[in-house]
Amino acid sequence: MTKAPRPERLLELVEAGQLQRFVELARELEPADLADVLAALDDEARLLAVQALPPDISADALAEMPEEAHAEETLAALDTEQAADILEELEDDDAADILGDLDPAEQQRILAEVEDPSEVEELLRYDEETAGGLMTTHVVTVLDTVTAAEALQGIREQADEVEDFYQIFVVDQLGRLVGFLPLKSLVVSPLERPVRAVMEDADIVVAPDVDQEEVARVMARYNLPSVPVVAGDGRLLGRVTFDDVDDVVEAETTEDLLKFGGVSADEELGAEWRSAVRSRLPWLTVNLLTAGLASAVVLVFRDVIQATVVLAALMPIIAGMGGNAGTQALAVTVRRLALGTIPRGQSLRVIGKETLVAAVNGLVVGVAVGVVTLTLGEGPRLGLLVFVAMTGNVLIAGCAGAFIPILLQRIGVDPAIASSVFVTTFTDIAGFLLLLGLAGMILL
Amino acid sequence: MTKAPRPERLLELVEAGQLQRFVELARELEPADLADVLAALDDEARLLAVQALPPDISADALAEMPEEAHAEETLAALDTEQAADILEELEDDDAADILGDLDPAEQQRILAEVEDPSEVEELLRYDEETAGGLMTTHVVTVLDTVTAAEALQGIREQADEVEDFYQIFVVDQLGRLVGFLPLKSLVVSPLERPVRAVMEDADIVVAPDVDQEEVARVMARYNLPSVPVVAGDGRLLGRVTFDDVDDVVEAETTEDLLKFGGVSADEELGAEWRSAVRSRLPWLTVNLLTAGLASAVVLVFRDVIQATVVLAALMPIIAGMGGNAGTQALAVTVRRLALGTIPRGQSLRVIGKETLVAAVNGLVVGVAVGVVTLTLGEGPRLGLLVFVAMTGNVLIAGCAGAFIPILLQRIGVDPAIASSVFVTTFTDIAGFLLLLGLAGMILL
Repeated sequence: MTKAPRPERLLELVEAGQLQRFVELARELEPADLADVLAALDDEARLLAVQALPPDISADALAEMPEEAHAEETLAALDTEQAADILEELEDDDAADILGDLDPAEQQRILAEVEDPSEVEELLRYDEETAGGLMTTHVVTVLDTVTAAEALQGIREQADEVEDFYQIFVVDQLGRLVGFLPLKSLVVSPLERPVRAVMEDADIVVAPDVDQEEVARVMARYNLPSVPVVAGDGRLLGRVTFDDVDDVVEAETTEDLLKFGGVSADEELGAEWRSAVRSRLPWLTVNLLTAGLASAVVLVFRDVIQATVVLAALMPIIAGMGGNAGTQALAVTVRRLALGTIPRGQSLRVIGKETLVAAVNGLVVGVAVGVVTLTLGEGPRLGLLVFVAMTGNVLIAGCAGAFIPILLQRIGVDPAIASSVFVTTFTDIAGFLLLLGLAGMILL
Repeated sequence: MTKAPRPERLLELVEAGQLQRFVELARELEPADLADVLAALDDEARLLAVQALPPDISADALAEMPEEAHAEETLAALDTEQAADILEELEDDDAADILGDLDPAEQQRILAEVEDPSEVEELLRYDEETAGGLMTTHVVTVLDTVTAAEALQGIREQADEVEDFYQIFVVDQLGRLVGFLPLKSLVVSPLERPVRAVMEDADIVVAPDVDQEEVARVMARYNLPSVPVVAGDGRLLGRVTFDDVDDVVEAETTEDLLKFGGVSADEELGAEWRSAVRSRLPWLTVNLLTAGLASAVVLVFRDVIQATVVLAALMPIIAGMGGNAGTQALAVTVRRLALGTIPRGQSLRVIGKETLVAAVNGLVVGVAVGVVTLTLGEGPRLGLLVFVAMTGNVLIAGCAGAFIPILLQRIGVDPAIASSVFVTTFTDIAGFLLLLGLAGMILL
């Protein structure tokens, strides 16, 4: 979609050691595309490439590198002066993001060479996953006492320091936010009008300690290109822009899908195998215990199976269909909770709906499996038994798939932790209890 | 976060029939908040509320209503003239979105009363899920032959018709896009400079038939507040802005999680039970057949189970752990494919990594379960058998969890269709084959 040089060509140039030609082509690339080239290089080649690039181009590319390419390690591997040059070219929020992944001693070593480290140091104090951690302190402000003409003049003077801006913030003498100007309204309003008469209310602001997911939610809900971050005393601290939040949404989506699949949310997608093992083994161990419970249920009923061994063949189909129906209800409910679209006081209705849907589906598959069982020649009682166990297990699964995440949310636990793997072992246990317990009663 | 009236208060007013007071308070609400109030009302009350509101306020709120609240039904229930008044207040892309959900006869009935329906009619021609379906035709343009001062004058004249804009597009006499101006650069550049000298290259554009997911990806990748939509002959057709894309990302995330959970991607989260049954039953039926295969495997080995009934208790634990490990590998791989972060030619490495991770985890849980089995007093051969079956099944599961979605992507099928429920039945079959097949060989 861009008319730029092919990334593969740049890779080849670095690998062939033709760094001068690489730098020429790199200038024509979008930062995100250059970032991908750097990410695809091995550590040594990446370091050579970054050393060859002018600091402003390195900075733009490092800011766009995916988390798992570890821009901070490249920065730390440079000599201190060069690292400081790059840091000075970075937007303060990007600088803080990259430095934040280094240990404090390394941070200090590089910051000591930076001309004015105060902004980055201030940002490093905020938790990475809050509005304070996302914001840039580079905002364009005008005083609430000026006219549109004076505001335009003030903006001309500030514009060089601020990369992109979509709103101008209006502050009082104490730096407190009193309103904002869409750039558009400043362009179209008569020059002699006071800013106060043109500005819009700053109704929507966030505090620096607000979680990044909430910041993303507010910006998407109110269609904001940027949102001001405001201290408790009303002082304007910075702004979060839509592109900061894009990354948050992408990361949260990854987390939600991984958690649903029973993987720790902090596993990096491209993690090497050792760290993937460390991330997943604890979950498998927990599930081993719950799966052990399912096995124990079967063990209790070993005499029933001994007497009617076809039950062993019916176990997986009843447990499996319960798992499927439970996972369906869970996926819908977890997503509704994440979007906040379950109205207050409607939790019981949601659980009721999921149970009803599962009951209907359970009846249909229960009849189907019951009829097929009749053809196995084990008598009508087994067919009835299978029908009851299947319908019951699918119903219980649908109810649990909705109830468990809603309960977790109520008691303050992230509902996404109720992953499909837990539901599956739960429905194993319920299915075996129903099938074998009923069989014990009516067949023995 | 806003200083607006409480939504609950507005609900009460509508329900008490105090529509005049409701309208007063509705004016103070953000459109998204008013949309939630309307969505929470029943159909009849919502119609009364929309009829009472001025068309511009109704329009803003209807544009923000969640998909499942069906703004189009409210619009269709109004008398034609009032519906047309609201349509005229809507942005053209929002108007097309809402109208697009009505049947053509209804669309025509309302559009016949609209003053200038041509823009909306044009947008209705594009597929809803493409750049053309997302874009607004309201763009601010300047000719490439003017100066910055003339451009500012031109923008002043156009600004009233265009709600928000972040970039000004520079076009030639034929309406072909030649570049863009960040609003900022126009504000800060000397007035006598030609626009050609100030503008930036329009490197990144999308065609009207590009899928909405790709539009979202491009905008996030290059941090764009808006992207121009350009026809094959270079003519500027419209623009897509970041807030259009927020909704796309949210909808795609919902789809991905639902598909992963084995639910049709087009099931609305708040769907009533009948449509949820229709959406899920086909999946359950397909899974019934695969689960039937797992049962058939067990049936084949009924003699083995009869001889060593403890195998029936080991079945769920081996199948279940395989399902868990497979779901883990699947979640990571599906997400990597969705983000496009698997480099070309690296598919085998990804499958290899997932298999290795599963092999290591399989060894650990295999040893644990093998040792526990020894304590059941069925002899050392059963312990060894369980160890081999568990390790083997977890390994196969990890490999399949990575291989299947990559294969689907290769043959042009959406990899997200490889849901956790399929992996679970697959690992059931593999686990039973391993456990019972090996048992048949070494125990009988």
